[in-house]
Amino acid sequence: MEKDTGTLKIEWAGQFMPVLSRIREQFVKEQPLHGVTIGMALHVEAKTANLVMTLAAGGAEVYITGCNPLSTQDDVAQALNRVPHVHCFAERGCSVEEYYAAIDKVLDAKPSVTIDDGMDLIHYIHTKRRELLSTVIGGCEETTTGIHRLHAMAAEGKLEFPVVAVNDTPMKHHFDNVHGTGESVLSAVMITTNVLIAGKYLVVAGYGFCGRGLARKAHGLGAKVIVTEVDPRKALEAHMDGFLVMSMAEAARLGDIFVTVSGNAHVINSTHFSQLKDGAILANAGHFNVEIDIDWLEAHASGKESRDGIDTYLLDGKRIHILAEGRLVNLATPKGMGHPAEVMDLSFALQALCARYITEHGKELSGGVYEVPEAIDVQVADQKLASLGITIDTLSDEQKTYLSNWDAGT
Amino acid sequence: MEKDTGTLKIEWAGQFMPVLSRIREQFVKEQPLHGVTIGMALHVEAKTANLVMTLAAGGAEVYITGCNPLSTQDDVAQALNRVPHVHCFAERGCSVEEYYAAIDKVLDAKPSVTIDDGMDLIHYIHTKRRELLSTVIGGCEETTTGIHRLHAMAAEGKLEFPVVAVNDTPMKHHFDNVHGTGESVLSAVMITTNVLIAGKYLVVAGYGFCGRGLARKAHGLGAKVIVTEVDPRKALEAHMDGFLVMSMAEAARLGDIFVTVSGNAHVINSTHFSQLKDGAILANAGHFNVEIDIDWLEAHASGKESRDGIDTYLLDGKRIHILAEGRLVNLATPKGMGHPAEVMDLSFALQALCARYITEHGKELSGGVYEVPEAIDVQVADQKLASLGITIDTLSDEQKTYLSNWDAGT
Amino acid sequence: MEKDTGTLKIEWAGQFMPVLSRIREQFVKEQPLHGVTIGMALHVEAKTANLVMTLAAGGAEVYITGCNPLSTQDDVAQALNRVPHVHCFAERGCSVEEYYAAIDKVLDAKPSVTIDDGMDLIHYIHTKRRELLSTVIGGCEETTTGIHRLHAMAAEGKLEFPVVAVNDTPMKHHFDNVHGTGESVLSAVMITTNVLIAGKYLVVAGYGFCGRGLARKAHGLGAKVIVTEVDPRKALEAHMDGFLVMSMAEAARLGDIFVTVSGNAHVINSTHFSQLKDGAILANAGHFNVEIDIDWLEAHASGKESRDGIDTYLLDGKRIHILAEGRLVNLATPKGMGHPAEVMDLSFALQALCARYITEHGKELSGGVYEVPEAIDVQVADQKLASLGITIDTLSDEQKTYLSNWDAGT
Amino acid sequence: MEKDTGTLKIEWAGQFMPVLSRIREQFVKEQPLHGVTIGMALHVEAKTANLVMTLAAGGAEVYITGCNPLSTQDDVAQALNRVPHVHCFAERGCSVEEYYAAIDKVLDAKPSVTIDDGMDLIHYIHTKRRELLSTVIGGCEETTTGIHRLHAMAAEGKLEFPVVAVNDTPMKHHFDNVHGTGESVLSAVMITTNVLIAGKYLVVAGYGFCGRGLARKAHGLGAKVIVTEVDPRKALEAHMDGFLVMSMAEAARLGDIFVTVSGNAHVINSTHFSQLKDGAILANAGHFNVEIDIDWLEAHASGKESRDGIDTYLLDGKRIHILAEGRLVNLATPKGMGHPAEVMDLSFALQALCARYITEHGKELSGGVYEVPEAIDVQVADQKLASLGITIDTLSDEQKTYLSNWDAGT
Repeated sequence: MEKDTGTLKIEWAGQFMPVLSRIREQFVKEQPLHGVTIGMALHVEAKTANLVMTLAAGGAEVYITGCNPLSTQDDVAQALNRVPHVHCFAERGCSVEEYYAAIDKVLDAKPSVTIDDGMDLIHYIHTKRRELLSTVIGGCEETTTGIHRLHAMAAEGKLEFPVVAVNDTPMKHHFDNVHGTGESVLSAVMITTNVLIAGKYLVVAGYGFCGRGLARKAHGLGAKVIVTEVDPRKALEAHMDGFLVMSMAEAARLGDIFVTVSGNAHVINSTHFSQLKDGAILANAGHFNVEIDIDWLEAHASGKESRDGIDTYLLDGKRIHILAEGRLVNLATPKGMGHPAEVMDLSFALQALCARYITEHGKELSGGVYEVPEAIDVQVADQKLASLGITIDTLSDEQKTYLSNWDAGT
Repeated sequence: MEKDTGTLKIEWAGQFMPVLSRIREQFVKEQPLHGVTIGMALHVEAKTANLVMTLAAGGAEVYITGCNPLSTQDDVAQALNRVPHVHCFAERGCSVEEYYAAIDKVLDAKPSVTIDDGMDLIHYIHTKRRELLSTVIGGCEETTTGIHRLHAMAAEGKLEFPVVAVNDTPMKHHFDNVHGTGESVLSAVMITTNVLIAGKYLVVAGYGFCGRGLARKAHGLGAKVIVTEVDPRKALEAHMDGFLVMSMAEAARLGDIFVTVSGNAHVINSTHFSQLKDGAILANAGHFNVEIDIDWLEAHASGKESRDGIDTYLLDGKRIHILAEGRLVNLATPKGMGHPAEVMDLSFALQALCARYITEHGKELSGGVYEVPEAIDVQVADQKLASLGITIDTLSDEQKTYLSNWDAGT
Repeated sequence: MEKDTGTLKIEWAGQFMPVLSRIREQFVKEQPLHGVTIGMALHVEAKTANLVMTLAAGGAEVYITGCNPLSTQDDVAQALNRVPHVHCFAERGCSVEEYYAAIDKVLDAKPSVTIDDGMDLIHYIHTKRRELLSTVIGGCEETTTGIHRLHAMAAEGKLEFPVVAVNDTPMKHHFDNVHGTGESVLSAVMITTNVLIAGKYLVVAGYGFCGRGLARKAHGLGAKVIVTEVDPRKALEAHMDGFLVMSMAEAARLGDIFVTVSGNAHVINSTHFSQLKDGAILANAGHFNVEIDIDWLEAHASGKESRDGIDTYLLDGKRIHILAEGRLVNLATPKGMGHPAEVMDLSFALQALCARYITEHGKELSGGVYEVPEAIDVQVADQKLASLGITIDTLSDEQKTYLSNWDAGT
Repeated sequence: MEKDTGTLKIEWAGQFMPVLSRIREQFVKEQPLHGVTIGMALHVEAKTANLVMTLAAGGAEVYITGCNPLSTQDDVAQALNRVPHVHCFAERGCSVEEYYAAIDKVLDAKPSVTIDDGMDLIHYIHTKRRELLSTVIGGCEETTTGIHRLHAMAAEGKLEFPVVAVNDTPMKHHFDNVHGTGESVLSAVMITTNVLIAGKYLVVAGYGFCGRGLARKAHGLGAKVIVTEVDPRKALEAHMDGFLVMSMAEAARLGDIFVTVSGNAHVINSTHFSQLKDGAILANAGHFNVEIDIDWLEAHASGKESRDGIDTYLLDGKRIHILAEGRLVNLATPKGMGHPAEVMDLSFALQALCARYITEHGKELSGGVYEVPEAIDVQVADQKLASLGITIDTLSDEQKTYLSNWDAGT
């Protein structure tokens, strides 16, 4: 029988996810999630499907919907629905009402563990579905923006169950954010616009992990990278890393391509639009579509023309091109594939192991944000190195002694 | 009235082609191609359409077909057919018979000037349509492979009209080949496969202009680049540029991703296939689909599975993934966009000016391969710098004197 | 009157230390160190002299000696001794006995604040001069290795006064370690050996802040960088950053140049020496000369030949070249200049402000290792940006609200 | 017996010159230069000494002096004078009179072959010692500037014997100029000034082979590179390679460090000095000390202070720092070591083989500039690859046929 395209995509991605594959084999044997109901709101595409299937293989009943109206791949969603113990409600291009209706469906399953990318499930539970607070053991959160929101909640004492901050662990942000965002944003921008990166002024708003990966790789393709920041220390790092550092007010006049990865709202706004060069290209790679003030453009532009993945606004006779409606450009642009499989292998290996951890230990923990246990982080690194066939050094006893000794001097 | 998608694409590309736009304005005024029939075989997509429209705007009657069965964008072809004085016969996915029938249609128009990308028109005229040799004034050739073939013809005394080697001029190969191929191949591979470039062994077969652009940019994204070469001097350049240099026999065992840009046949062949790692990804960025010996794979693989733009062959239990059937990956993969607009701006500005040159001077020239006149090359550079707003230095009289003087010593 | 060379060097470095200069102006006015005796053991060269003079300008009586027998610049030491309130005991090439005698002289002044680079003063006080424990208010430590030793002491409950870990603050290790070590090691190796970096296998042992700066910059010059690590997560980072990652046992057979920056002992040892290629060059950039097991070489080599900054050992007919006797190569090689002035500007600005901080707050703190107060870290960043004329963005009220809000979702 | 420092230096460099070593072995056997007198004017340091000894080993009587008053290493010159059949007249810091007196001494030996770096010998013969024109068979020229002068002479019909343009052959300029100049200039600037490269605006005047090597490597260390050019095509290459391109008038206001590699006079002149930032650092890496108009500074500066390798001029209250008196900074700065041994291995292997070629074929050639025979160029590449243990591919018969065939099309 011919395979469906969703299954072909899932199998393709699975090939490049050796760590998750090994965990799946282990889960099949050990059934650590037996009897657990997991609710998920993630980008529903091929890599995520491999996580979902790993959780189901580990004994869980999995209910999943999207975490962004434009990031679902429908054929993958359909393929997932054919997997035993998996229930998928995501649809590409759904309305905001449909988006929240799907979240409700996930929550109707009364999950004991949640897995979020942007904290929508956790938020919804704490506000609209508070009856579930008694049944949820804990959650996992994937992204920087979600962690920010969780810390804000925790600071107000409003986070009522334990959540593992997967994003904050080294094996996540040093790979997924730096390399995954960096490469997938560039390929999405290149394939959507067909413009050359070499020689361009490419403005990166925000020099966090995502921003620095993007800056370094754009530079590696030949761009003149401009970094904007609000943190003076990160700004100096960018300066010494060889990038041009300036305020967005200055960058607006120079930039050819802009990518926001700040996690903040309106970093490109009405004060900047009028300064842009004719034909400037703007994209967002932050989690939410708030970084560019598109509402203002919609209200004030004298015209708008749309192509595949590109909306061109006319302002004072100049063209401003917005990619993917200002949503996560690597996922939401029509040809976008999201993060490469190999980085999602690491992130989702962490998610699978943290889902197990929260299942086993969640009840011992009070409400709050928790780090990924170091042993899990190291285990993922070890398994990835093994899959690459890379051997590294180990400390000899003499070296362990040396390191613990404060006596050896000049 | 709603614009069609072909026109939207053409206008989009045109925005990023300032040099060609300026030439078009000049052509509209001066009508240098008045009464000239131009026959073209090029990749029919949005950038090419801007060249075609420039030639038509200059007074020419233009007949065009594709130069590769998989590189045509049908909506662009249709939009071109709505432009006065333009006749387009290209269709994506045509058979070899249809491909050559379309070439015949172009030649039926009895062009006095030919513009080729790969030398198919010139070859066809010299072999199958020799009656046209009396009416053709001259031609222009776009690509490295075509130039190789032309030099081979000229060496045998078989090239019967003058052809300008656009590929060989600095403003072409230092930009189109280095940056255009480099970026478009990477974005095509990334968007087709969704694999990470960082950390991968990426093998580049051939360290010509295309190869070095690709190597440098892949390295800039974090790949460990391996270069294979047959020329010891280029091999040493690659070595000192920081790349790993080895034979393909050795590279075959290490590589994760292979891209051929050698202009040669079977640089990856049956002796290498069996050495590949499971899951190796192979793509070609040379003009013709001969660099990877796919015929051998078709004949010997134990299985084949196809996804969008990817054919997976099974050989000795290992998977070998071939992108875009081994054709030019940046154009022939389903999401491929070809070279970025800005480099085609330079290449097609050269083509437009060389078409004018051959119209005006072709009759004075005997059969053979000719360089682009330096004045044309410099003019394109000057106009591109002007469009970027970049000012450079000029030699003072004192400096001119210094440079022409051999007397000043230590 | 002609200036002496020491003064010329100090003034030269001072030009490139704008942040420290501004602090000096402030110190002159406010005299925050009035009456304080400061004991220092740092590399005595031109940048350090600017710190010493800043502390003296702030009212302190400063006693200083070196922290490495080969890193002192004698003309700078002499010039320092002509500065009021400064007493310098360092001498290049001193014996180990003389080295510790000089430390004793510094301690004889009964310092209330110590500034260390490698923890020699603090160690000496806690072991040999315990009578001083009653008069020391606190200390500052400059380097990674010193911090390791301090944490080991603190873990055993043996650190009896508060020490600020200058090395661990972002404004130190993101600049001094990454850029300072990276550049100064490369220039020292290049100028000592006159070998080409391009094309070489350059092995970096340790992928901490120093190692990654060195790796990136060596790669930027064209080296094929090999990284060895004991931490699987750092190893994977190196892998995805584009470097070759392997064990030292494997690297030993490939490497042309080796630089140890591990902070550990014997990372290149007798098991590796015999595997090295003829002519391999070994250097250390870690704080102590223990990273390469030179004692073993001294005992087992069949011959030794010395050049300026290079000792060549013969082993099994092969030459092994050790730079600067395995001491900090950027300081201890005869032409070495140490870290660039601009990074020491940041590090020493932190030291000056932390010396003030410990003076003002040390008595409130119990024994242990303390972070640099964030306000000091940010102040140094702000002043450096100001000196560069770089303006960055600031958060609007709307943005502050957005960031503190966990309510805004999809 | 203890070796002298000159011999130690020569042996050190010799280790990293495997191609020249192999040629020396061949020369010892074949004595191709038996009875030939060779006159040389080159930088007299350790790498050159290895060339000189190779020529002498091949049977020649060699007379050599320097080609720059500041580039001689006296201990190497002394060691050379102890080598049989070698006569060295170079002295570091000689006056212009002494410089030319030494050239006279070389010419007094009536050389039949000349080897120049900057064309001083050839110029002197054609102007002051025309009686030698009858005995000279031919010459070799090492550097870009010399070739320019030779072409100017040849254009006027004034070059009376054949000269091989070693600089112009791929194995010279793709390595010596790109990598040798790039690395040695950076290490010389870094070690002389102790400033950080990361974050600096580093201005490269001239984007020839030397300029692009320097630009790329400075960028690799973290500099923001600005390129100035007079050729619009090279300017565009620099732009797309990711560098900032502008006129020197604009660059003067931004730059922190300037390096001239233009081969032209006064590229930094009085119109630029007044625009420089306080503390700007200026160095020259072109052959002659004319690229920066130091005479103007000497005449107009209000003060001057000298340090080791640095002259600081005061102009309008600002400091302008000139390295190595504006002479070739990589050789003339006190700590400068010149080009790395590995690139001189290639260049001097070419020189040795070309000296043999001119000996054997010079009489057949008329006056003019000649390319290095391709067979010599390829031989050097092959031997270098062999010394690195690198194997590359060779064309199969099928591939040779494919490449010579113009028949294979789409």
